[in-house]
This record gives sequence, structure tokens and C-alpha cells, in this order.
Amino acid sequence: MTVEEFFDKVITVRMKEDRSALDIIDQTLLPGTIKRIRISTKEEIWEAIKKLKVRGAPAIGAAAAYGIALLSSRITADRYETFYPEFKELKDYLASSRPTAVNLFWALNRMDRTVAANQEKDVAEIKELLFQEADAIREEDVQISRVIGEIGFGLLEELKQEGKEIGIMTHCNAGTLATAKYGTATAPMYIALEKGWPGTAMHVYCDETRPLLQGARLTSFELYNAGITTTLQCDNMASILMQSGKIDIIFVGCDRVAMNGDSANKIGTSGVAILAKHYGIPFYVCAPTSTIDMDTPTGKEIPIEMRSPDEVTQMWYKERMAPEGIHVYNPAFDVTDHSLITGIITEKGMCHAPFDKAFEILGIGK
Amino acid sequence: MTVEEFFDKVITVRMKEDRSALDIIDQTLLPGTIKRIRISTKEEIWEAIKKLKVRGAPAIGAAAAYGIALLSSRITADRYETFYPEFKELKDYLASSRPTAVNLFWALNRMDRTVAANQEKDVAEIKELLFQEADAIREEDVQISRVIGEIGFGLLEELKQEGKEIGIMTHCNAGTLATAKYGTATAPMYIALEKGWPGTAMHVYCDETRPLLQGARLTSFELYNAGITTTLQCDNMASILMQSGKIDIIFVGCDRVAMNGDSANKIGTSGVAILAKHYGIPFYVCAPTSTIDMDTPTGKEIPIEMRSPDEVTQMWYKERMAPEGIHVYNPAFDVTDHSLITGIITEKGMCHAPFDKAFEILGIGK
Repeated sequence: MTVEEFFDKVITVRMKEDRSALDIIDQTLLPGTIKRIRISTKEEIWEAIKKLKVRGAPAIGAAAAYGIALLSSRITADRYETFYPEFKELKDYLASSRPTAVNLFWALNRMDRTVAANQEKDVAEIKELLFQEADAIREEDVQISRVIGEIGFGLLEELKQEGKEIGIMTHCNAGTLATAKYGTATAPMYIALEKGWPGTAMHVYCDETRPLLQGARLTSFELYNAGITTTLQCDNMASILMQSGKIDIIFVGCDRVAMNGDSANKIGTSGVAILAKHYGIPFYVCAPTSTIDMDTPTGKEIPIEMRSPDEVTQMWYKERMAPEGIHVYNPAFDVTDHSLITGIITEKGMCHAPFDKAFEILGIGK
Repeated sequence: MTVEEFFDKVITVRMKEDRSALDIIDQTLLPGTIKRIRISTKEEIWEAIKKLKVRGAPAIGAAAAYGIALLSSRITADRYETFYPEFKELKDYLASSRPTAVNLFWALNRMDRTVAANQEKDVAEIKELLFQEADAIREEDVQISRVIGEIGFGLLEELKQEGKEIGIMTHCNAGTLATAKYGTATAPMYIALEKGWPGTAMHVYCDETRPLLQGARLTSFELYNAGITTTLQCDNMASILMQSGKIDIIFVGCDRVAMNGDSANKIGTSGVAILAKHYGIPFYVCAPTSTIDMDTPTGKEIPIEMRSPDEVTQMWYKERMAPEGIHVYNPAFDVTDHSLITGIITEKGMCHAPFDKAFEILGIGK
């Protein structure tokens, strides 16, 4: 399978060429079943986002944008005054699918602005502009990830030695299954494939990432299907892996980066970074500039979401795996101190410490 | 429930007062069901060890010792020459239950020596001596753990502040469920209860300990049942827990300690130690001197057992949680470098670096 055939198989969301439906991979069936489904009605689109058939911030954004474009194309009103209220109703409906997904609102609001900014135009033309805007939202994510991947690929090239695979560790899923195409933490590896590297030139070690197992279910799935040598390990095996000399470089994604470079990402990331520092392994955060929040001075100001005990004690298991009555600590994220980060890779360039200065030089947050 | 009532409920193995059977807690039913079962026939004893109803090196040793004592008491031969072959047959049978459990052979060989050393005595007297030797094996483990617990309790006393709970982290299960009574890593907490501390004076954070979940299934179960405030977290949450300031001290068990203090213990322990060092939290290994191997110079010489991929990808889950075809890395243990260890607590005293000198001073390995 070529890398393009791979993307064709697992791409999170795309519009059917005849614009009759969205075509998504149903992520709730992974890793056991690879099934692409058509979603066409507003209820189907809502449910796909709600039930995590589509997940990952950029992928949700693209699904919402294509979804509202598709649904708007079927509005029968032919005047802006009657079209726009129907558009708003659809928008509010889709926005209710996952109220905590910031990218969902961001994408829907951008689509809304497209309508509002073109109210002097024909409704037919507005409908066409909505499809174009959805394409743009998707394409921008592809481009951002591509540039991050190119920069990361440069690091892989430096590590390349004849006859030796490059050992790469990642945590959680910041992959194609979370985005429009390349992922962020996975982008360097996919770019390497596009440049003609064989999948066996790299060996990616995926933390399973408890409690939700995104590393096991998603990351190892996508990398393996792309033909990259892939190993899965439990989170607590990262130390012995690094100690063994198998890991040359670490790429992780992020949810939010503070001005000083402190980076919030999936729970466990800060532990990986501390181990990497201990063992002298470079640790890179792959961060689209949209995740860098210059209004947040340090990681201390980033709130940490606490999630349900069920995810730890019973959600995935055949039976309850811990006694009733105990407390369960289940934070969704942790903050990696900037001092542990070798570099933050953005689509505007590589940032090294001091990160606030690097962000300023690249014009981030301006 | 008093601490004695607690032990009465969960003690791994004991002989019925009328010497008719062994009374064990069936650990395969934990944490959902607390059920004590009678095992009396040789097949039942064999199966209890084989199927992990009894587990943990000292507990297996005690079960084997009581088991062979019980079975020997029913041998009808009244002369040593006919008694001993029957004893040997029973011994070999029990030894076949778990061929990798070193403590199983150690206990059975010790029972064998008891028989051999008393061959001039009446068979009835030998049978009585076997019960006494089994009691001794059990009682020695209780005493070793008690002394380790007393030393660890001294550390807890130093941390005690009015109105503040002491935050303790542990990994895997080095608890009462693995031993004859106090456990090793849990002994400081149980001794604290015996000294009259309320369970709420301590808050123990248990790593779930993937892949076999001993922390979730066993450690959090026993500490919670003892009345100690108990929280369960995924292994990858240890970093944020330490960062949050909730952890004052860490106790772990060990499988084998090298002469220089490098300590092999359940996978993930070395990661916990690195995090502890990073956050400045004291990290103690609780090690009966029987686990200190002065013939092994450093941790590099300790072989690491690799276990089945199934434990990571499907054993506990409702369905397979990772794609077919990927590699799985599943080492059972890792080695914590001696430089990361604040102290090794043995029944002969506390050892600080340089550990080889400390071991020598305490006469360990002599």
C-alpha cells in the first residue's frame, strides 16, 4: 500500500465528490473493524460527532464544516433573509453535539461568517462558498501538519544511520485519525513515507495511553496500517524502553501551550518528558500555532479537566477491575514543564527555549 | 473494623485450627468478591497455587509449607523408610504447580530437610515437626515484614503534621495479599494502624500497574479494606500527582536487589523512581534480605522476563484493544538504578548509598 492509498483508507472525513454525503471512518469500530460510513442527514452528522465516530480537534472542525455545508446546500429558501435563519438553526443543532469541543464552534463560526459576509450574493452562490470554505478549513489543517511534518522529518534525517531503524516514541493519538491528514506528532513519519522512506526505516513505540487507550486503539493502528514498524507498550514501560537505548527521539502532540512553553497534553506526557530528560533523549512537542495561547503566561494557569472514575475502573473491562468505594484520580491532561522540552515544532518554524522569545520572533499570537 | 479483624479477613493462607484444611482467600475473585475457601486435597492445593488463588512469593511459600504438612499428616506409613518416599512424591507434585516460583521450591526443600534431619524420630513426631516448620516459615515472614514496617513507620512519623494526611504512593502489590501478613511496601501503613493511627492519617495512591493491574485489583482493595484512605490512578498519572504536591513518600517492593543497590521490581517502578527524583520525593525499596543477591554485581546482570502480548492487548478487555500484527513490548520487570533510591529497607535495618557498603555492614549475604 502506498502512503496515498493509506490516507485514502483512513482519512477521517471527506466530502463525497457528488456532494451527496460525508464519508468518514467510524473510529468507534477501531482497531477491530475498518469501516467507512456515509453520513448525510443532520442527525447522522450530529451523532457522528457526539458518539466520537469523528474525534480530534481538527477532524471535528472539518466534519462540522463539511456537515453544515452539506446541510445548507439542501435549504430550499432562495433569499438570504429566509436562508440565514435556517442555516443558524442547523449550526446551533450541530454545535450541540459536543459542547466542550472548541474546534467545533470555531469551524461553525467561521462558516457562519462566510454566510454573513456574502449576504449580498445569491443563495446558490453562498452555498457554493460554504463548500469552498469547508475545503479551506480542511486544507489549512493539511498544510499546517505538512509543515510541522517537514520540520520533524529534518530531525529524523539527522538521526538516520545506514542499516539502523530510528526509534521514535509517541504518546496518545496526535495522528491522522485526529486531524485532516498528517496528524501532528505523526506528521514527521508520514512525510518520511511520502519522501520515499520505507516504513521499516522507522520503529514507532506507542504508549497505550490509559485510561482511554488511544495509543493502542488508534496510533498503533494507523502507523501499522501505513507500513511503519510499530510496537505497543504499556505507559509504565516507557522507562525501560528508553533505558534500553531503543528510543532516539520523541514526538507528542499538545492541547494548549502557554507563553513560556509549558505544554498541556494527554495525561502522562509530562512523565514521558521527565524520563526523556533523565535518559538524554530529545523530546519535541508538535504544536500548530493555534494551540499556543499567549494570554496564558505559564502552565499553572491551564485548568486540568477531571474525568469519570469509570474510565479507570470498568469502562473497557470485562468486569470491574477495582473495588467499589475507593477514590479514583483521573485527570485528562497534564502539563509538561518547558524546561523538559527540546523544541516546539509549529507551522511557522521550530521554537527553542526561551520559548516566549521564540514565539515572539515567529509572530505567534499577533 | 480493627486492623486484626482486617487481617483475619484477608490473610492469604492459614491452617485450620483442627488441621483439617488450609484456609485461603481466593485472589482470583478479587476485587469483586471476598471469599475464603477451604483447600484440603492435594489437587486443591496444587490448583490453588497453579491458578494464582494464592500468589506472591512469601504467600506461595507458606501455602506450600502448610500444604505439604497437611498432606503428610495423612500418610499412613508408620516407618520413616515408607513415609519418606510418600512425602517426596507429594513434594514433587506440589512443586510442579508453578515451576518458576522460587519460593515454592525453597519452602518445600526446607520442609524436606525437616523430615530428613529427624529420620530417627517417630513418624508421628515428624508429622508434628512439619506443622511446626510451616508455622515457622509463616512466622519468619511476618517478623521480617514487621521489622520493615517498623522502620518505614519511623519515616511516616517524621512526616506527620497535625491535621494533614500523609501522601504515600506505591506501585504493584507488595502487600498482605502477597505475603503472610504485613506485605513489604504496605507494612509501614499496617504498622501505623496497629500503633493506633487512624486510616485517614494516610492517603495511599496506588498505581493500577498495567498490564496485570495488581495495583487496581489487589493493593487498592486491601488498603481500602484496612480503612486507609485509598486512591487509584493509572500509571501515567504518577507525574501529575507528584507535581501536585500530594505525594510525600514512596514505598515499593522488589524482586531482586543487586550488590550495588540496583533493584528489579514490577515493570514501571524505575519510571516512578525517576519521577520521584525529579520532584524531590523520597523513594524507598522494601526488601527482605532474602531478595538481596550479593552474587549479582549490578542490575545489568538481572535478566528481564518478557511476557505474552495478550496481557497488553486483550487479556482484560471486552474485545481486542490493539490491531492484529503489531509488535507488543511486555517486560515483567524493570531495574531501578541505585542512584534513584533514597533507602533500601531490610529487616536488618535501613540501607543508604553506597548500598554495597551498607549491605556489608549489616552482614547481608554472609
